[in-house]
Amino acid sequence: VSLDRLIAPRSIVVVGASPDLAKLPGRPLAYLERFGFAGTVYAVNPKYDRIGPYRCFPSVDALPESVDLALILLPAPAVAEALEACGRKGIPFAISIASGFAEAGDHARQAELLAICRRYGIRLVGPNCVGMLVPEGAVTATFSTELGRAMPRTGSIALVTQSGALGNALLQGVNSFGLGLRAWISTGNEADLGLLDFLEYFTGDPHTDVIALFTEGLRDGAKLVPLLRRARAAGKALVALRAGRSEAGRGASASHTGKLAGAFRVWSGLARQGGLIEVDSLDEMLDVLRAFQALGPPSIDETASLGVLTVSGGLGVVIADRAAEYGLALPRFGVETMSTLRELLPPQMSVANPVDTALFTSADGYARCAELVLGDPAVRVLVLVISSLSHRYDELAPWLRQLGESARALGKSLAATYLSSTDQLAPATQIELLEAGLLALPSAERTVAAIGRWVTARKADDALDAPAAMPGASGRDMLAAAGIPQPRQKVCISLLDATAYAETIGYPVALKVASPDILHKTEVGGVRIGLADADALRRGWAEMEQSLKAKAPHARIEGFQVQEMVTDAVELIVGCSRDPEFGPVLMIGWGGIYTEVLEDVAFLALPATWTEIERALSGLRVSKLIDGVRGLPAADREAAVDAIARLGAIFVAEGLSELDVNPLLLRPRSAGVVAVDVLAIQAP
Amino acid sequence: VSLDRLIAPRSIVVVGASPDLAKLPGRPLAYLERFGFAGTVYAVNPKYDRIGPYRCFPSVDALPESVDLALILLPAPAVAEALEACGRKGIPFAISIASGFAEAGDHARQAELLAICRRYGIRLVGPNCVGMLVPEGAVTATFSTELGRAMPRTGSIALVTQSGALGNALLQGVNSFGLGLRAWISTGNEADLGLLDFLEYFTGDPHTDVIALFTEGLRDGAKLVPLLRRARAAGKALVALRAGRSEAGRGASASHTGKLAGAFRVWSGLARQGGLIEVDSLDEMLDVLRAFQALGPPSIDETASLGVLTVSGGLGVVIADRAAEYGLALPRFGVETMSTLRELLPPQMSVANPVDTALFTSADGYARCAELVLGDPAVRVLVLVISSLSHRYDELAPWLRQLGESARALGKSLAATYLSSTDQLAPATQIELLEAGLLALPSAERTVAAIGRWVTARKADDALDAPAAMPGASGRDMLAAAGIPQPRQKVCISLLDATAYAETIGYPVALKVASPDILHKTEVGGVRIGLADADALRRGWAEMEQSLKAKAPHARIEGFQVQEMVTDAVELIVGCSRDPEFGPVLMIGWGGIYTEVLEDVAFLALPATWTEIERALSGLRVSKLIDGVRGLPAADREAAVDAIARLGAIFVAEGLSELDVNPLLLRPRSAGVVAVDVLAIQAP
Repeated sequence: VSLDRLIAPRSIVVVGASPDLAKLPGRPLAYLERFGFAGTVYAVNPKYDRIGPYRCFPSVDALPESVDLALILLPAPAVAEALEACGRKGIPFAISIASGFAEAGDHARQAELLAICRRYGIRLVGPNCVGMLVPEGAVTATFSTELGRAMPRTGSIALVTQSGALGNALLQGVNSFGLGLRAWISTGNEADLGLLDFLEYFTGDPHTDVIALFTEGLRDGAKLVPLLRRARAAGKALVALRAGRSEAGRGASASHTGKLAGAFRVWSGLARQGGLIEVDSLDEMLDVLRAFQALGPPSIDETASLGVLTVSGGLGVVIADRAAEYGLALPRFGVETMSTLRELLPPQMSVANPVDTALFTSADGYARCAELVLGDPAVRVLVLVISSLSHRYDELAPWLRQLGESARALGKSLAATYLSSTDQLAPATQIELLEAGLLALPSAERTVAAIGRWVTARKADDALDAPAAMPGASGRDMLAAAGIPQPRQKVCISLLDATAYAETIGYPVALKVASPDILHKTEVGGVRIGLADADALRRGWAEMEQSLKAKAPHARIEGFQVQEMVTDAVELIVGCSRDPEFGPVLMIGWGGIYTEVLEDVAFLALPATWTEIERALSGLRVSKLIDGVRGLPAADREAAVDAIARLGAIFVAEGLSELDVNPLLLRPRSAGVVAVDVLAIQAP
Repeated sequence: VSLDRLIAPRSIVVVGASPDLAKLPGRPLAYLERFGFAGTVYAVNPKYDRIGPYRCFPSVDALPESVDLALILLPAPAVAEALEACGRKGIPFAISIASGFAEAGDHARQAELLAICRRYGIRLVGPNCVGMLVPEGAVTATFSTELGRAMPRTGSIALVTQSGALGNALLQGVNSFGLGLRAWISTGNEADLGLLDFLEYFTGDPHTDVIALFTEGLRDGAKLVPLLRRARAAGKALVALRAGRSEAGRGASASHTGKLAGAFRVWSGLARQGGLIEVDSLDEMLDVLRAFQALGPPSIDETASLGVLTVSGGLGVVIADRAAEYGLALPRFGVETMSTLRELLPPQMSVANPVDTALFTSADGYARCAELVLGDPAVRVLVLVISSLSHRYDELAPWLRQLGESARALGKSLAATYLSSTDQLAPATQIELLEAGLLALPSAERTVAAIGRWVTARKADDALDAPAAMPGASGRDMLAAAGIPQPRQKVCISLLDATAYAETIGYPVALKVASPDILHKTEVGGVRIGLADADALRRGWAEMEQSLKAKAPHARIEGFQVQEMVTDAVELIVGCSRDPEFGPVLMIGWGGIYTEVLEDVAFLALPATWTEIERALSGLRVSKLIDGVRGLPAADREAAVDAIARLGAIFVAEGLSELDVNPLLLRPRSAGVVAVDVLAIQAP
């Protein structure tokens, strides 16, 4: 079902409307009138015939016709009945704002709403939400008090939030900074429609450039990465703030993967995988949205190299530090730029990027420096640091607007920031300049961070390569069937047998007790590694027999397993598990016995593409080891990525609940990998 | 020399003063007059007899008497002559603002100033600085335009900055937020007096509670940690912002320590060691200063446990996340608090901390909830999230002031923050409330961060234990003389000799070629480890002979070294080097061949105390290994700390330029340590 008629309804009924503007149920009708919603509006309230300019009916059933959207303002106990009436009337979309459902522990009452929705085919927003707002067409299906201040401008930012109050806070920010909204939706308890439904909708919406999300936890989280991929492929920029980093509710787990899979770590991994810009606070969210509105969508080869003009050498250093953190270049200026700057600046000032004009230079001199740096071919974004200590802000605004136009003509961008965040341009001036394409954030640090995040929304250019299809297989042979090499090994029942087999596979070998009664082999002396020759194997065999007699006298011994040993290999851990929120996830990390101390791991949603796996692996510390350090040879990265992709595919195809390979040994380049220890747990 | 007469001069001469208020040299005299400096003021300028109310003389020599402080406003070429005249006149302190010295490459001109200072015993601030300001007594020895706006309040914050422009920006913040200043000093090029001189001075100043620093790089950085320790011991809180994280100018280094010692990493380590609160931006600096001013100095057992009242559940989660990050508790409320909250709040709202009153609760209900949470015994700081969507800000201010008084009476503190940073209390109200002890920061994230940083300034309670004194020693015997065990080893010239020695020390052993011509033994096959018995040793010997014949045919072989092997040990790296900025530093890290990939290292200034070493070690990932993970035994942490302290002492006592021990092997608890490979480089 398309959500077109929810976002752009031709007619709305407000159920439980009130003429009292001081109260919450009075607001939505008043907003619809004030901002000029052009469609049909009805009110429902048995006490009135008319509210303001709108006809009022005693019940939904009494309406003269169906409508596109019902905004239900009634308290929790009355919502089900009203929704039922909407269903009878054939109304396709409803919003319920009432609290007192799942968030208060009453899951049954919420389930009742969903059942009614399913019965009639209604799509519901809420309950326990603040409603929805679409500036284009003045669709004010909300009681947000922020609309008492002003209606946001129409624009291309779709803002979807699970928290109503934070949604309101974001709306305050949107108005304060003059951001343009495509839509603002508070999803509340998400009995029916959730955050991801709107992510999907706005992905297909041509009026949306940026989708901004606030989430405390996702239902159907397994759909997140596929939806993010589609949104990025459609050229949408994605920004999200996540709350709820605590680990409660994730329970204990037997596998390494489970132990390392904290909610926030998994979320961050998946966000990176899906090309989503993660922010840490509402202010950072608004900073990034302002960057998108000022600078437009980044082009596919966006460099965001900064040319910086500052009135403080110290702040120039701060900017250079931050730029390096975000991977932004401060390029060397061309010879022409430098020599003209040399003429403009006092002899003691440097003409290198960032250029410090100090507080002494005249306004005119500063302007000429700015135009010069903006014109330098290596500069993509001109960052100006201003201060009322050295500039007259009232004179600055018209000049900045003009400079913004020059920048646009050159295909470049302009950012202004302040020596001190307590010394900003007036809010109205900031809004005016934002329209002229100028980003004006409170501090240099925030400016560089916002540009650094903005540039990561370059349209993704990688093909969505699919992982290899997996042959069906089951049990212990899964890895073999999937073509993932395991060490050669054999359970031997005599020393003669063992030495003969070791001769075949070559030394060194490992010797491990094979017994259904022994879970932790090391603790009973049931593991010997690095046996270098027949002598060592013989001695190991004898010592193991002795140790087992002493420490596990009653265990049934099936034999001793002789296993090929791979030396000089890089150890990875690869694990798959089912995250309670995000569904099947894949973990890649530095393996071996220190895995949990190193915590050098990354998470991806499954199925993951080859490119995503390669990228996640490259982001780990162990990647340097794979490249070869300190005289060690480079390891077989390609074989590793291939094996990891296969393991992920096995996990999905077999419907396992956990799958750990630790270690996955990477031999030198072109020599492949070996999966040494495998733990596979079938779903119950 | 005490700086008392610089900070509180009884008389000032302004050299190069001007009656033109529009120009820089006109400002200081005007400020002295306007803000009522009570001491004697003279001006020097051959063109005038009088400037404003002050007598003006043609030269410093012509002054009727000496003064405490000369503020020299002349350009660079004229400064030396004026300073010379100050010297003749017996003036003890001078400030030069002129640029055109070392910062512009003219080191000779700056050296000339210093020579004059030394000759006459003058202490100089600058050149290339903005001057100095002490609100108490209205000492306005500066041309900062910010004083055109207002004079900061008198208070207990001493602000010392190397950057003039950022110093101005901080001054703007100080005025905007109503912070109280002990003094504000811009040190500029630091020809004579530097940042650390003022750190030392304010450590001994009874009017100073907080010392805030902005630095781009320290001269005499080796004094930093000793000075920080003294300041902390004197109960001062320390806050600093550092710019210049880039690695340029540190040069290449042969040792591990040198390679890992990036300027910023070393700075951060030393800041932690000295108990300094590190901030990342000017805004964070001002947030922390506001926290100190509102909450006062933290007590020795400060818990900063937060009781949170929010109008948004989502923001409650954000606050809980951040509190966890900063180690702040959100304690469980007492039964009484919970039951009364239950009566006040709608039944669907939770009464657990953080309490969400949503946007619906009445102002009166909100106030009663706030008083209740503030009164709960487990709560130290009440954090209120407010919003103009649910509160009337004009009514809120008097109530907040009253609540602040209640908090003070209980020995508690109060912080208010906003749903949206674009919806703050008016600046004047914020200043007024700050005086009443209320911290009001723009966002919940910044509030938690500021409180989290504030609490770390708890007065240090650890005794300054000194490292053990070191016996003098030299060359290869240094470690032995210092009592640090090394593996037993012997250079053997025959296989018979080798097997006999191995028998004595016990297998497994390592075999390493001993040759003055072979630097990298591994590359020519000159290292065999894990030789488990006589057979293996024999084979290893033969293979090594062969390999050397092929790969190093011309090397002089002195023999093969048989070395004891320690297994199951935790590997540390310990390194000492001379940092170009901070002097002798000690690095502790996870050792072995992956050291540079793991980058699990911490830096301390030398000499370091036992407690500081223990704390730095505990902050590393490898510390978990030392505690024993995955069935491995806990390692000898005490012996490690002791050995590290001794290595640091050797380095200092012997005046080495580099000292690396890698690995330092930690045996199981009580079994001590072994320093395997030692690299010591004598200072040239």
